[in-house]
Amino acid sequence: MIEDRHIGLAYGNGGRLTRTLIEELFALHLANDELDVGLDAAPMHLPEGMVPMITTDGFTVQPLEFPGGDIGSLAVNGTVNDLAVSGATPLYMTLNAFIEEGFEVETLERLVQSVAAAARLAGVKIVAGDTKVLPRGQGGGLYLATTGVGMRPADLQLGLGRIAVGDRILVSGPVGDHGIAVMLAREAFDLKGPVQSDCAPVNHLTAALSEVAGLKFMRDPTRGGLATVAHEIAMATSTTVRLKETDVPVQDPVKSVCDMLGYDPYYLACEGRVVAIVAPGAADSAFAALKRTPGGEGAAIIGTIEQGRAQVLLETEIGGSRVLDELEDDPLPRIC
Amino acid sequence: MIEDRHIGLAYGNGGRLTRTLIEELFALHLANDELDVGLDAAPMHLPEGMVPMITTDGFTVQPLEFPGGDIGSLAVNGTVNDLAVSGATPLYMTLNAFIEEGFEVETLERLVQSVAAAARLAGVKIVAGDTKVLPRGQGGGLYLATTGVGMRPADLQLGLGRIAVGDRILVSGPVGDHGIAVMLAREAFDLKGPVQSDCAPVNHLTAALSEVAGLKFMRDPTRGGLATVAHEIAMATSTTVRLKETDVPVQDPVKSVCDMLGYDPYYLACEGRVVAIVAPGAADSAFAALKRTPGGEGAAIIGTIEQGRAQVLLETEIGGSRVLDELEDDPLPRIC
Repeated sequence: MIEDRHIGLAYGNGGRLTRTLIEELFALHLANDELDVGLDAAPMHLPEGMVPMITTDGFTVQPLEFPGGDIGSLAVNGTVNDLAVSGATPLYMTLNAFIEEGFEVETLERLVQSVAAAARLAGVKIVAGDTKVLPRGQGGGLYLATTGVGMRPADLQLGLGRIAVGDRILVSGPVGDHGIAVMLAREAFDLKGPVQSDCAPVNHLTAALSEVAGLKFMRDPTRGGLATVAHEIAMATSTTVRLKETDVPVQDPVKSVCDMLGYDPYYLACEGRVVAIVAPGAADSAFAALKRTPGGEGAAIIGTIEQGRAQVLLETEIGGSRVLDELEDDPLPRIC
Repeated sequence: MIEDRHIGLAYGNGGRLTRTLIEELFALHLANDELDVGLDAAPMHLPEGMVPMITTDGFTVQPLEFPGGDIGSLAVNGTVNDLAVSGATPLYMTLNAFIEEGFEVETLERLVQSVAAAARLAGVKIVAGDTKVLPRGQGGGLYLATTGVGMRPADLQLGLGRIAVGDRILVSGPVGDHGIAVMLAREAFDLKGPVQSDCAPVNHLTAALSEVAGLKFMRDPTRGGLATVAHEIAMATSTTVRLKETDVPVQDPVKSVCDMLGYDPYYLACEGRVVAIVAPGAADSAFAALKRTPGGEGAAIIGTIEQGRAQVLLETEIGGSRVLDELEDDPLPRIC
């Protein structure tokens, strides 16, 4: 039992309290048949004939809990989703926690339980971890970092290099929910409630897309949102990425908040969406694959890869078009 | 070129400045033939017939630079060493950076160069990374997290469960250097200079030990030092771990500082040492293997696993013995 109500510096010293924190809070909730906190390094059982993939991500979201998620579920889904969009099935994960001195044990426990629930949902096992305690005033409460290992079929070829003029662009659901949900949770606005973060694992969506012949590229539009993914594609392929405003799904409450506060939903982070590029003839089957998969009900075909200068064009509702430039200032810091 | 002299919040937004930071600072220095910053997840080439191992560690050392190392070399060696003592050859690594708003670009560049140099020395490739920028006053300058993947021979069986009464304990060099070097760098004492951190990769030492028949267990005595490793062994095996004070190597300047300030060198962190447990008949060959490997010149046989209650006994110079209890308070916070 952890006797203190708040984490003190001594919980990071490697001695008795560190052991208590790891055994009776982290390992207790993250337990799985391959987690052994007594090891310096954990063995992984990786299926043969597939390509092992690795990715890592840091999380500093503020507030730590928001409608639809928290830093714990975000830390699992962020890394699961980076593996998923690279075509890999996520299998193993590691977890780093940087805890600020004075952090409430009860809150920490709730967030670690959220990590555990998200890991179970995504089907990954957390097999290694580390905790550090930061002196009061140098930590922002809690920061997490996760690293994930997954396996990709050897014959699944995805990449920016496969994209060609004529390809279609899809998104698995409405954009901007996560950004707005976190922003509303942070501010004192009387707008709380209507918007929930889309924070979720996308590995079932990417698995469904991977069955579609003609799938070329997938990415999760996190920091910088849909516009940033579109911009990366335009730059890497020297094409014009044309998006149609009327086709890009944005939920009404997100639209309202954006209109009111001057945000552009296309630059806001999603944490449970996939952007996919497919060959022209594969758009309908990719759309159908998303639609029939849980989490993909709001999918849409939103644009086309066109010949032209490297840029992102948004065809507006009234028939004009505006350029979506690369993101400069940060509209919403610490969203992930 | 990064035009700013200090990292602003917008370097963490996923847009142009994030791309600049990643491409022109991190990727520039960490470049290797398998690093591609355009990927969501990186493929790993893992040799078949061996066991893939994973480990992770966070780093919050203060000050960021100290005699003999810095947070960059520490972050690489800490994770390399956890793989090494588990019997694995380190191959791949991921890097998370949490950078405080206002951090000097020049210092960041120097530290990332140190990461790169340490990775080259240890023979690991950094293939994935992530950067986050923390609001001023919530970051402590720079925190790093590293995750490493290595391969262990399938027939190398190491573990606390293999330790038996009569086994001998070795250490690869003097203890406490890292802890004292960081402490002196932090304080305004006029004692700077004589003590350098032992921060170094131990994978050559563990490879040499792995050739010794009778090797049972290895661990790097980091947070909590030699006493904490000895304590873990005593608890896990229900034996008395007896260490001989006159045999445990401690450098004279470390001894002096400890005497002066009331620290116990056995609880101070090392970042380039290995503790090894071997069968009784293997002590001499393990000692010889360490002695002939660079970094192991100061090796010593320091104790024995004995029947008795689970405790760590230090046989003192004057013939008595004192119990080394499990670490309670933190003698030196933020040492790693």
